[in-house]
Amino acid sequence: MDRTALIEAARGDRPLDLAITNVNLVNVFTCEIYPADIGIFGDRIAVVGPAGAYDLEAKETIDGMGKWAAPGFVDTHVHIESTMVTPASYAAAVLPFGTTTSIIDPHEIGNVLGMDGVRFMVEGSEGLPLRVYTTISSCVPAVPDKETAGADFGPEEVAEMLTWPRVIGVAEVMDYMGVVNASPKMVGIVQAGLDAGATIQGHSPLLMGRDLNAYLAAGIDNDHELRQGDEGLEKLRLGVLPLLKVSTYGNYARNIVPTLKSAPFLDIALCTDDIEPADLLKNGHMDRVIREMLWHGIEPAVAIRWASYNGARHYKLRDHGAIGPGYLADIILLSSLEEVKTSEVFVGGKMVVQDGKLIEPIEEPPTTIKIENSVHLRQPVSVEDFKIKAPIKEGTVNVNVMVLEPSRLTRLETVPAQVRNHEVDPASLGEDVCYLSVVPRHGQQHPPVVALLKGLHLRHGTLATTIAHDSHNIIITGHRPSDMVIAVQELEKCGGGIVIVDEGKVLGKVELPLAGLMSLKPVSELAVEMEAINETAKSLGIDHRAQALAISGLALTVIPTVRISDLVGLLDVATQEPIPLFA
Amino acid sequence: MDRTALIEAARGDRPLDLAITNVNLVNVFTCEIYPADIGIFGDRIAVVGPAGAYDLEAKETIDGMGKWAAPGFVDTHVHIESTMVTPASYAAAVLPFGTTTSIIDPHEIGNVLGMDGVRFMVEGSEGLPLRVYTTISSCVPAVPDKETAGADFGPEEVAEMLTWPRVIGVAEVMDYMGVVNASPKMVGIVQAGLDAGATIQGHSPLLMGRDLNAYLAAGIDNDHELRQGDEGLEKLRLGVLPLLKVSTYGNYARNIVPTLKSAPFLDIALCTDDIEPADLLKNGHMDRVIREMLWHGIEPAVAIRWASYNGARHYKLRDHGAIGPGYLADIILLSSLEEVKTSEVFVGGKMVVQDGKLIEPIEEPPTTIKIENSVHLRQPVSVEDFKIKAPIKEGTVNVNVMVLEPSRLTRLETVPAQVRNHEVDPASLGEDVCYLSVVPRHGQQHPPVVALLKGLHLRHGTLATTIAHDSHNIIITGHRPSDMVIAVQELEKCGGGIVIVDEGKVLGKVELPLAGLMSLKPVSELAVEMEAINETAKSLGIDHRAQALAISGLALTVIPTVRISDLVGLLDVATQEPIPLFA
Repeated sequence: MDRTALIEAARGDRPLDLAITNVNLVNVFTCEIYPADIGIFGDRIAVVGPAGAYDLEAKETIDGMGKWAAPGFVDTHVHIESTMVTPASYAAAVLPFGTTTSIIDPHEIGNVLGMDGVRFMVEGSEGLPLRVYTTISSCVPAVPDKETAGADFGPEEVAEMLTWPRVIGVAEVMDYMGVVNASPKMVGIVQAGLDAGATIQGHSPLLMGRDLNAYLAAGIDNDHELRQGDEGLEKLRLGVLPLLKVSTYGNYARNIVPTLKSAPFLDIALCTDDIEPADLLKNGHMDRVIREMLWHGIEPAVAIRWASYNGARHYKLRDHGAIGPGYLADIILLSSLEEVKTSEVFVGGKMVVQDGKLIEPIEEPPTTIKIENSVHLRQPVSVEDFKIKAPIKEGTVNVNVMVLEPSRLTRLETVPAQVRNHEVDPASLGEDVCYLSVVPRHGQQHPPVVALLKGLHLRHGTLATTIAHDSHNIIITGHRPSDMVIAVQELEKCGGGIVIVDEGKVLGKVELPLAGLMSLKPVSELAVEMEAINETAKSLGIDHRAQALAISGLALTVIPTVRISDLVGLLDVATQEPIPLFA
Repeated sequence: MDRTALIEAARGDRPLDLAITNVNLVNVFTCEIYPADIGIFGDRIAVVGPAGAYDLEAKETIDGMGKWAAPGFVDTHVHIESTMVTPASYAAAVLPFGTTTSIIDPHEIGNVLGMDGVRFMVEGSEGLPLRVYTTISSCVPAVPDKETAGADFGPEEVAEMLTWPRVIGVAEVMDYMGVVNASPKMVGIVQAGLDAGATIQGHSPLLMGRDLNAYLAAGIDNDHELRQGDEGLEKLRLGVLPLLKVSTYGNYARNIVPTLKSAPFLDIALCTDDIEPADLLKNGHMDRVIREMLWHGIEPAVAIRWASYNGARHYKLRDHGAIGPGYLADIILLSSLEEVKTSEVFVGGKMVVQDGKLIEPIEEPPTTIKIENSVHLRQPVSVEDFKIKAPIKEGTVNVNVMVLEPSRLTRLETVPAQVRNHEVDPASLGEDVCYLSVVPRHGQQHPPVVALLKGLHLRHGTLATTIAHDSHNIIITGHRPSDMVIAVQELEKCGGGIVIVDEGKVLGKVELPLAGLMSLKPVSELAVEMEAINETAKSLGIDHRAQALAISGLALTVIPTVRISDLVGLLDVATQEPIPLFA
């Protein structure tokens, strides 16, 4: 960047490259909105002034009359993998909604491919029109020794990755009890971030009181997992920057904003965390989070400040997130302020979205990482793997069943089950109970674990996926072991994805060859596939949010109350102790 | 710092070192004030909670009932040299007023001693109970080629000093027209700061419009030289962080705050810039700036946020400027919130001020810099050096006279003067006109420059000082060349300071052996000496603010309208062209 030429253009001794005139400027420094002209030179903003004040001379002038100019949105915490595409496809999908900077946590692909996975995301986002900054996943696996992921990041690995380009933070420190208990691993990982001058992302749903103080004393900067108003206010008071979110999995901001608004001073940031493909196309991205703020009565300029400048500043991203001289010319034009409707997007002074549409396709950057089938089974699965062996030959035993709630939380239920020929018969527990299994797929040498699941409302058939947070083994639920075998075989063959099988037939499949998590297709195509498989899941009875992915969190050993892990089967999340199958 | 032990203390599994209970917490995150308990372990805050919530177990407990706890103040821009003492003495003086972090610009000593001067300040502030961070002076000398300082810092020197410990920024970029005109030197210096990830301090009084845009496009982050409301608001809108100040030289905030308050969102920072010893002891420090904010109706918690957290965050000083778990335990207790009256000060958890008094003396840190007499004259001065040679032998000539206004600004006046035997007779212009000279003292090989000064109201005698911003040659004004010679000899002998001579006698002297700028005495002693010499200056007629230092800005070539430089004599600041003595 030629700073001298920029200065000359700013003062008026060199023509600007682009002027956007008579536009309603959303000034995120003062939270005012007023008519203004913006002059751009190269990839930066050179001059900003009241409309008509400077009679800007530029090679190209765009009349912004009737539109609003805002800084491109800065998403402060997001997993691209949740949108199930590559960074390039992701960029193509989110830019039309006004997001120009994404601070990503590649912990899904990191759990499968390890440091290679993180490197793939860093390389795969190099030079995109979306500015991608990476935070280094701190909890791979989510909880040590309780599950098997494809990798294990300790302080050394994290420290090494913190030196990679465009790496600016340590990603959500989810093992918050590890931090509260000062486990050497978690303290070491946070310290690696502090030593690197990185921002440390928190993740501590419902944590309050002295444990919260202990968590923060470790060096945590922010939290996107606020669940309740009182929790949010307590965190705010203790210096946490709330990153409020609306994601595919819920409107987490709704309960919290009213309480946060009671603080005399509130200046926070926003994020999306996880957005599935169809949800993204239908409901938007950071613009949706801003609309949620407007719903709460937050002034548009304030909400946009939260969605741009504050995140940039929090992560020390100099010159990002605002419209002022010297800032990067990442500017969006809104055709409606109330609806937060983006019409044009400029990144580094180049128009990349016009009339809400991407102008040109975005090419995949080259990568040094070779993408191979990541589904590594110890040996082919058989129907025997999914049967539940009982301690008696015939009769009744009490079994512990995981119950999935509509909230995606879980609980334990103990019920009497029929045993026939040493095998528990799930059908004896009613149509709503089926097998639940985790099939190791990172080359582990142990067999699948099996348990029972209730509450999914799967009436028949089998649903399986390699998206099984966070270790991403295969999670599978079904009524018939023979269908379950077919489902696993399908996933093994295509390198992972989502599959639905019923009565020996594959009813639906979404292939996700990249780590079993992501497709090489664009979001628009993937959204169609996802909608189709979701319809199939629904037709089999699943009435949960994110139908075909309703089971993808059942192996996530940090979310209450009961989960399943490849190492121990059913797990009590609070105590991290195994739960026996038979009560 | 043992992070594990801190976490344990925070969660309650290890006794705290100190608890401050039942105190009114000034929460700078939310701008609330409420009763709270604060637990400290080692040098950090471990736990903060509502009063009584956690029943804190600590080795020592202080009852904070009836007091307010606030973060120690962060001064965002200050020259310790203006207080004319070493960093250790400065720390002893400002800590009782609640300042615990100072972001210094050592450009006075830098102008005299060059990089050695900067290093002296860095070394001399190591390990003090006051946390001192250094910004590297960007304009040494203030304007290139127009004056001679003891050093010349280019981009390389600045880049090197930016690597020194506790260096966090580039100091006030005063040569704003150099930046606006994209001079390679100034662009290079700012770029060195950007490359180092440093914060870049602005200094652009009254700069507005496209020139301001050009200045900011270079990469400027803040400005402490706002002079008018409209200028302040324009800067705020363009992304400048205003650092509002009240200094010995004026209440710069008074005119600006009412206009800034009109912005819907305002979240700025505060500084002191220059405080002379007696003024400091009498009127305070950052507490005075906060009182100014309260005068404008700013809420106390907001004003304290501006005086602590915002500056820390702006300079990326992690864990400074707030009371929250993990933050440095730099806490002050106020006995009056309205008066911002500090009673106790804790730095890193240690009490250093009690009942408003420093508990123990502060030792000078060791330094590798040898402090020698810095007054280097080419040759002894003589009475001939101060006479003004006229182009005629006898009669009348029109002379250009610098007029000093009560505002400290200057203007030019052309008046007819009597010439006798080829010499201009100042007495012919009235009692209020006297000689004004800059005597080179950095070993320059040219003689003193001489001109005429009006408006100081010095009725007789001579006033001279080595404090002559920013190059710190000797500036001297007087009615009789013979007195002026004695004054210069006195300064040469003692290594600089301030001296008043009348009729051959030294009436007053303050010795400043450290670079001719600073004393080795404590502020309390120096304040007495300064008050004495100010009284002497007053007795000779000087009725300006900062009496004995009323002339110390007359060689500052960046302040309107007319100044005097060792290289060219009278100088037009706007054009940077010499002004001839005879019109």
